[in-house]
Amino acid sequence: MIGLGRMGAAMVRRLLRAGHRCVVTDVRREVVEELQSEGAVGAFSLEELARQLQAPRAVWMMLPAGVVDDALERLVPLLSAGDTVIDGGNSYYHDDLRRAVQLRARDLHYVDVGVSGGVWGLERGYCLMIGGEREPVRRLEPVFAALAPGVEAATRTPGRDGSPSPAEQGWLHCGPNGAGHFVKMVHNGIEYGLMAAYAEGLNILHHADVGLHRHDTDAETTPLRNPEDYQYSFDLPEVAELWRRGSVIGSWLLDLTAHALRGNPELSHFSGHVSDSGEGRWTQAAAIDEGVPTPVLSSALNQRFSSRGEGDFADKLLSAMRFEFGGHLEKKGGG
Amino acid sequence: MIGLGRMGAAMVRRLLRAGHRCVVTDVRREVVEELQSEGAVGAFSLEELARQLQAPRAVWMMLPAGVVDDALERLVPLLSAGDTVIDGGNSYYHDDLRRAVQLRARDLHYVDVGVSGGVWGLERGYCLMIGGEREPVRRLEPVFAALAPGVEAATRTPGRDGSPSPAEQGWLHCGPNGAGHFVKMVHNGIEYGLMAAYAEGLNILHHADVGLHRHDTDAETTPLRNPEDYQYSFDLPEVAELWRRGSVIGSWLLDLTAHALRGNPELSHFSGHVSDSGEGRWTQAAAIDEGVPTPVLSSALNQRFSSRGEGDFADKLLSAMRFEFGGHLEKKGGG
Amino acid sequence: MIGLGRMGAAMVRRLLRAGHRCVVTDVRREVVEELQSEGAVGAFSLEELARQLQAPRAVWMMLPAGVVDDALERLVPLLSAGDTVIDGGNSYYHDDLRRAVQLRARDLHYVDVGVSGGVWGLERGYCLMIGGEREPVRRLEPVFAALAPGVEAATRTPGRDGSPSPAEQGWLHCGPNGAGHFVKMVHNGIEYGLMAAYAEGLNILHHADVGLHRHDTDAETTPLRNPEDYQYSFDLPEVAELWRRGSVIGSWLLDLTAHALRGNPELSHFSGHVSDSGEGRWTQAAAIDEGVPTPVLSSALNQRFSSRGEGDFADKLLSAMRFEFGGHLEKKGGG
Amino acid sequence: MIGLGRMGAAMVRRLLRAGHRCVVTDVRREVVEELQSEGAVGAFSLEELARQLQAPRAVWMMLPAGVVDDALERLVPLLSAGDTVIDGGNSYYHDDLRRAVQLRARDLHYVDVGVSGGVWGLERGYCLMIGGEREPVRRLEPVFAALAPGVEAATRTPGRDGSPSPAEQGWLHCGPNGAGHFVKMVHNGIEYGLMAAYAEGLNILHHADVGLHRHDTDAETTPLRNPEDYQYSFDLPEVAELWRRGSVIGSWLLDLTAHALRGNPELSHFSGHVSDSGEGRWTQAAAIDEGVPTPVLSSALNQRFSSRGEGDFADKLLSAMRFEFGGHLEKKGGG
Repeated sequence: MIGLGRMGAAMVRRLLRAGHRCVVTDVRREVVEELQSEGAVGAFSLEELARQLQAPRAVWMMLPAGVVDDALERLVPLLSAGDTVIDGGNSYYHDDLRRAVQLRARDLHYVDVGVSGGVWGLERGYCLMIGGEREPVRRLEPVFAALAPGVEAATRTPGRDGSPSPAEQGWLHCGPNGAGHFVKMVHNGIEYGLMAAYAEGLNILHHADVGLHRHDTDAETTPLRNPEDYQYSFDLPEVAELWRRGSVIGSWLLDLTAHALRGNPELSHFSGHVSDSGEGRWTQAAAIDEGVPTPVLSSALNQRFSSRGEGDFADKLLSAMRFEFGGHLEKKGGG
Repeated sequence: MIGLGRMGAAMVRRLLRAGHRCVVTDVRREVVEELQSEGAVGAFSLEELARQLQAPRAVWMMLPAGVVDDALERLVPLLSAGDTVIDGGNSYYHDDLRRAVQLRARDLHYVDVGVSGGVWGLERGYCLMIGGEREPVRRLEPVFAALAPGVEAATRTPGRDGSPSPAEQGWLHCGPNGAGHFVKMVHNGIEYGLMAAYAEGLNILHHADVGLHRHDTDAETTPLRNPEDYQYSFDLPEVAELWRRGSVIGSWLLDLTAHALRGNPELSHFSGHVSDSGEGRWTQAAAIDEGVPTPVLSSALNQRFSSRGEGDFADKLLSAMRFEFGGHLEKKGGG
Repeated sequence: MIGLGRMGAAMVRRLLRAGHRCVVTDVRREVVEELQSEGAVGAFSLEELARQLQAPRAVWMMLPAGVVDDALERLVPLLSAGDTVIDGGNSYYHDDLRRAVQLRARDLHYVDVGVSGGVWGLERGYCLMIGGEREPVRRLEPVFAALAPGVEAATRTPGRDGSPSPAEQGWLHCGPNGAGHFVKMVHNGIEYGLMAAYAEGLNILHHADVGLHRHDTDAETTPLRNPEDYQYSFDLPEVAELWRRGSVIGSWLLDLTAHALRGNPELSHFSGHVSDSGEGRWTQAAAIDEGVPTPVLSSALNQRFSSRGEGDFADKLLSAMRFEFGGHLEKKGGG
Repeated sequence: MIGLGRMGAAMVRRLLRAGHRCVVTDVRREVVEELQSEGAVGAFSLEELARQLQAPRAVWMMLPAGVVDDALERLVPLLSAGDTVIDGGNSYYHDDLRRAVQLRARDLHYVDVGVSGGVWGLERGYCLMIGGEREPVRRLEPVFAALAPGVEAATRTPGRDGSPSPAEQGWLHCGPNGAGHFVKMVHNGIEYGLMAAYAEGLNILHHADVGLHRHDTDAETTPLRNPEDYQYSFDLPEVAELWRRGSVIGSWLLDLTAHALRGNPELSHFSGHVSDSGEGRWTQAAAIDEGVPTPVLSSALNQRFSSRGEGDFADKLLSAMRFEFGGHLEKKGGG
């Protein structure tokens, strides 16, 4: 395991618990030592890591997408034919396709694994979306099984009997190289949409008291026609908790939302500048290449851009146009 | 209980299981008799229903939104001061506000309850979003508790200890009249967004093989620049199953999606004309009145309209414009 | 003419130029006197206005939507059977329908006129969208013709020969009461979409130099993959000017945009908090009632709400969820 | 001029009218001969074309984006140092960047020109967005000036006096290589948004008679609450014509829309499967790379995808989910 950040370290711990031997390394000496003390074999260089693994090696990288190529360049000369490199980070699947070709030229295998589970994965297990050749993936099955949540993490889908399939255990060989990160990319695209759906709905509840507030009554602003319909002061932490049981919209993201609101109903320690990682963007790029409509996922991504002020110039243009045609100063209405 | 349709009948059964006495009626004699045979008290008219209940009565209507006012008109004269009428259907909360005023004038209570759970509620329990005065709601607590899933339906949110709150049991007094259906309305608005997020994401996976197909190469169509990146044939039933365990996007809707895909991966028995009930529309209307942005929920609703062909004239206009400025015939590109 | 604001006063001037006799009033004495000095008949009360007009009177109100009902209440008792009241402001067409019924009960006519043209109308003429009964509309034709731009304001549409229709002159009897404001409402809905299209496109050009800037390279942010493709520093005032001639996207709004950018390329005196008047919202409400998809118009309205910070709580929720599942602090990425 | 399709042939004619000498070629012998008869110098091969032009040559390609690279490969060996190749088609600006480097290695210049104007350009002139090095662009100025509409094509923007800038004449050197096609790409992205805004608005008017029709009254469908508000039968060709004069939304696209509706108000000869060319997609890709929100432009593109049925599988998934949780058969409502 190369890279012992939040995700990497927890995955090692889950593997150790399952009885796997793990050789671990990281640029930060102290995290290596910490995992050493928990039973992992520490390595303080890639050379040491390679030496401590027996061929055919399986080297799992859990690194920021931006440094994977550098790591590969240093790692590959240390490996021997038949070894497998696993990229479990958030790489773009285009990079997987390129790297797989490069490694194949040296008789190395490349397996891309999209890992979902976040900081909770140590306890819950990780959902693993896997791309690569059949043979190295098969060899890694025990590792995937140990990392994955296992079938008991959810009730079985009616109609699925007998021995649980890998997907039912929480890992799946999705297809050839890139397939793992492709599925993970779309997973994150969906995640954006789900998050936005909850956030927008709760925001409607948050503003359901708008009829209680006095409003500007300047000539150009249309007043709320029916303030009597917006007199509700909802208790959002309770509503989020309520929906967790029995409703159609129960989900793990809702569980987390209920937790977040419970701790701080006004979310006052957040600024609302929402980051987006590569996956949401790449999902859009894929949808555009395929020519399939994704109005909801596009909207979710655009809203994140907006939240960071990237639409400010466009907004100023709107105000400028309104001034031009109607003499409207900002904060006034009309057309 | 007035109205023994899919939802009403199942709710009676759940109440009977919990030991509640239920007087039931419906325009269809046979469904009344069926529930009679299961332990309910049958009534074959509203008069009979009113007679068999002791004051203060609690009359729960589980009727299509369009017939509630008619039923109320016939029911109210049969009730006495202090009785409570509960509307558990999908009424617009504007109607709740109006009806509550009308009933209050006759010393009757009105309680609006948004019920989520669908056909699964008998076993899973129902999530109940409740609006109305404090007193009649308090009197109904045992009923709500019997219908709701109970705290064990989900792991408790960290930080919530001691005796579970009503919300943790799956029912909540959300506020004054209309509050129940308001929260249910937004719940359904969110539901549309969630559903669309999964559907769009899975559609991207469904079309990830677009590079395998030959494409029109007429002069005006831009060819797919990188067909080698779209060579994946994903097994959607397995992917949906996979995401159920350990991933960030696990949810009950995903459970259902996995089930639906398992049975028919191509969904060939659906046409894709997606209905929308009132709640999705009303959610938008509320957002507009409040002036809060809901790009994702708006998009989800718009896509449902599109799926039913309601945008066809607009699409024809686009083709007509393209023909006008570029001489483009349909199915050709350009600008 | 009741109401001598920006629009009302200019319309009187245009009518005076065309030789019409105008009796004018306003709560501000000085604007009445100013128009008096330009040839209008001043009135300093509604009574005086009614007295100075001969039956059948035509009283044109050019008032903020919020005060029309008050004005009508005071005006109606002063009128006689057969008189016509014209509402040329930005009323909701629902109000037109109600008012027309009320006035008809007193043998008065009500005509609703949606007026477009803004501060430029005095010179350009006003585009008039008219709703009401046939007879009073016919009587007002000379007034409409004087206010409208006339056929020479645009080249005639090929295939339209002979005597120009009213629509070709810039005014149209669109249908019964409410039809005028309905068409104006949709006109403004379209306007929002057009404005947003320009603003978003120009914003893309504005940020086309993103590859020239250094970017955060923390572990969680995906770097721009191809900075070499975003090295353009476009001169937006020149680009907007360029598109005014010969391009497919030439329009009056583009003319105004070119003017605004010419004066202040960075638009630094605007904050970007974009107002929305009632029409954009009502357009959405109509689309929802009709069940027709309006993804672009919905998006344009939602973006205006966002520009004013009404989505902030939703954005905070997104950040809170990201923190919950991934330990992400704001301004970092991942999934 | 290589490529005498709809655009190329018309551009040659416009150049001939302005007194320019044009050597023309095309794979179709007859179109070469036709232009020969109109005064152009015909060439029946690239070799002949190169021979007939004097160095430094200016070779303008007006070809489908998909065949430009092939043409360049055959053309380049025939050119000499200092010659300029102009790509006036709809190339992706990424390709411009690549080609410019390739040509520079052989001391050739590459100029990319985005051309807007469509089939009307011969009379109206072409709007030219130009990218490339300063020197070859300067040499081509007379050509650009002849193709462009000229300053008289629109009233001058207030504040612009004196000798008209190139942008005011309808052509602009936007920046280095790729800048021309970048600006044209965004131009088309805006075009999609504008078109959709008109189409959606007119569709709302088209359905404003929805209250006149009887509706399904099955239990699960929410009826239109206020059919009395949707009783309008608008005359769309007249409304489109009306808006052309004096309104805020006048534009060339509206002129075309009025023409299209005039000829066929129901647009019955269009199917509504709307094509999209590369530019709309590339605009989105650029916005995503830059991280700027484009909710309106995204929506417009997504709607085109939807119009061609590319969202069908997603729609089926929605129906399938509705069936799963609510037992809803398609065409029924609920939640």
